[in-house]
Amino acid sequence: MVTLIEESEAIPEVLAVYADINATRKTDWVNNFWKALANHPATLKRMWDNIKQVMAAGALDPLTKELIYIAVSITNNCTYCIASHTASARAKGMTDEQLAELLAVTGLANEANRLAIGYNVPVDERFLSTG
Amino acid sequence: MVTLIEESEAIPEVLAVYADINATRKTDWVNNFWKALANHPATLKRMWDNIKQVMAAGALDPLTKELIYIAVSITNNCTYCIASHTASARAKGMTDEQLAELLAVTGLANEANRLAIGYNVPVDERFLSTG
Amino acid sequence: MVTLIEESEAIPEVLAVYADINATRKTDWVNNFWKALANHPATLKRMWDNIKQVMAAGALDPLTKELIYIAVSITNNCTYCIASHTASARAKGMTDEQLAELLAVTGLANEANRLAIGYNVPVDERFLSTG
Amino acid sequence: MVTLIEESEAIPEVLAVYADINATRKTDWVNNFWKALANHPATLKRMWDNIKQVMAAGALDPLTKELIYIAVSITNNCTYCIASHTASARAKGMTDEQLAELLAVTGLANEANRLAIGYNVPVDERFLSTG
Amino acid sequence: MVTLIEESEAIPEVLAVYADINATRKTDWVNNFWKALANHPATLKRMWDNIKQVMAAGALDPLTKELIYIAVSITNNCTYCIASHTASARAKGMTDEQLAELLAVTGLANEANRLAIGYNVPVDERFLSTG
Amino acid sequence: MVTLIEESEAIPEVLAVYADINATRKTDWVNNFWKALANHPATLKRMWDNIKQVMAAGALDPLTKELIYIAVSITNNCTYCIASHTASARAKGMTDEQLAELLAVTGLANEANRLAIGYNVPVDERFLSTG
Repeated sequence: MVTLIEESEAIPEVLAVYADINATRKTDWVNNFWKALANHPATLKRMWDNIKQVMAAGALDPLTKELIYIAVSITNNCTYCIASHTASARAKGMTDEQLAELLAVTGLANEANRLAIGYNVPVDERFLSTG
Repeated sequence: MVTLIEESEAIPEVLAVYADINATRKTDWVNNFWKALANHPATLKRMWDNIKQVMAAGALDPLTKELIYIAVSITNNCTYCIASHTASARAKGMTDEQLAELLAVTGLANEANRLAIGYNVPVDERFLSTG
Repeated sequence: MVTLIEESEAIPEVLAVYADINATRKTDWVNNFWKALANHPATLKRMWDNIKQVMAAGALDPLTKELIYIAVSITNNCTYCIASHTASARAKGMTDEQLAELLAVTGLANEANRLAIGYNVPVDERFLSTG
Repeated sequence: MVTLIEESEAIPEVLAVYADINATRKTDWVNNFWKALANHPATLKRMWDNIKQVMAAGALDPLTKELIYIAVSITNNCTYCIASHTASARAKGMTDEQLAELLAVTGLANEANRLAIGYNVPVDERFLSTG
Repeated sequence: MVTLIEESEAIPEVLAVYADINATRKTDWVNNFWKALANHPATLKRMWDNIKQVMAAGALDPLTKELIYIAVSITNNCTYCIASHTASARAKGMTDEQLAELLAVTGLANEANRLAIGYNVPVDERFLSTG
Repeated sequence: MVTLIEESEAIPEVLAVYADINATRKTDWVNNFWKALANHPATLKRMWDNIKQVMAAGALDPLTKELIYIAVSITNNCTYCIASHTASARAKGMTDEQLAELLAVTGLANEANRLAIGYNVPVDERFLSTG
């Protein structure tokens, strides 16, 4: 079992990341993913910097980004990631109906992917130019 | 190579699906995915009925559904599906910046999934109750 | 590009495997997969021994084994493997209708897998005892 | 945790699908996969219609279809799906020896897929014409 | 649940493999993976022969091979394999820092893979000639 | 097709990353992966910062990191990544024999993963404590 680094045992470098997680998310607790990464402070800091940058509001809103994240996590079968990002998405307003539709699209895309691969469908000329 | 069933060689059952694809999408051409599935009319009809139902506007808008679809297709490495659904997403208004952010989230989720799996991070108590 | 080891350049160790492939399959040509593996004769011999043992008739007939092999190759998106084992399956009698049904089951299983994962469905008591 | 929709709480639309599952399978209980999907009745009905059509006897017999389904589920690491379809396959007559051979083929295909991908083996001319 | 074949119930063919595992690894216990495979003695023997040959010291040292094995197991989300090969790697001298770097590389490669796939980056001329 | 951003068209932000790639690698050309990412300068900079940090010499030497990277890329079937990192590994001294052993381990791990998953092997008590 991975050791989870609690605040009380954390070095300053780790505490600084934990504090930024709480400040950014306006919460007062850090979830286990970060406590596991804290075993290697360089990875903790690197991953938090990445997530903070990539998941922030941009041309896509934060909820849409969470939905995309969950679709990937389901496709890869990451139980932890599905649980944590479903919670994040709900905190950002995801409804039961939206979750159900997300799962339906994710499932169907996984099916259609295999039919396209299985038939080795050639890419249409028109798609090659649209980029 | 899979034989692509063109309209001129299609049986009525296939033509009916092609017509519904064009009517639903307000286009006048059918892309190769459907022409490949038409080798097995039951699969063609079944998949079109599924796609039409699942990708329609609902609690999630059609563009968001396309983004989710692309994220899955990238994770599964389906070249055809990435090309066809990038075109669909652009037709629904996806900008270059949105595509870039979609790729960034998709990539990062694939990374974070493996860190959660590699460290075998236990799911937080709080996530278990949110469902 | 991987160098394909043709018979004329092959060492005796490689030639012996090529000969056994032809004898076992009752053919007079070796496909590129083996010519690529021949760059490392130990891997060539090991893989041929494995394939010969595992794909032989047993409690499952050789065609059923080919269908299973194709389903895995589609799920993993291995273009080469889909092409070579579709040819093997056809040589063993696979019909167009059987191929179409194989693809339909493969696609649908990929979809249902993600719904079970996405909903994190708990395994039924009754299934735990059947093994 | 996903809420499993038991018969006593189910709306008529859901009950109709449960009844058809039992009638089709000649059983008197519905497994958790369907009780999870029942949170979104449209997905429940759609998936059942798909499974019923695709898994029925056709050019491939129902047991062969179950074997293909299990091979995909193992490749995707879906614990639930492996458990439920192993039970279905046993109910259709799968023996211990057949299960062992299914696992052997599934494992070996996963290995050979990566060797073909790793060496980037070019598809043989002869395979391109067989389709 | 799979039945684990303990020494006391094992047939001579299985006992011979267990003995070779212990002799090769200089240990006095066999882990569950082999006890599960022992349900099908031909698979047990075949897999042990493969693992013994492939994981032995060669042009790559045994620890490097374990690291590669763990990277694959994380990418495929095989909890058992990650646990057993992390133990093997530690027995061969892997440090905490090495494990952390292994996870970082594995995660980042998974991310970069999807960016290359998502942008459909064409392979550089220079790479085509290096093989 | 993705537009590759050549030096002549690049904005200063992109040129600075290209210059750092060349300085770090002691080369005078930038491969297509970076020219594709340059369509979104924030992603280009973020990914280069990540790769530079993670792939640098540490507790694992740079060649070992390349081998791990290739194993992941093969498992995910990323043709571009296999080509580019095989070139990087060769530049760092990888021999033909080492490449062949890397592929053998990668393939076999993919097989063994599915056997462990297919048999749903329970993790041994002893592994749970080693972490």
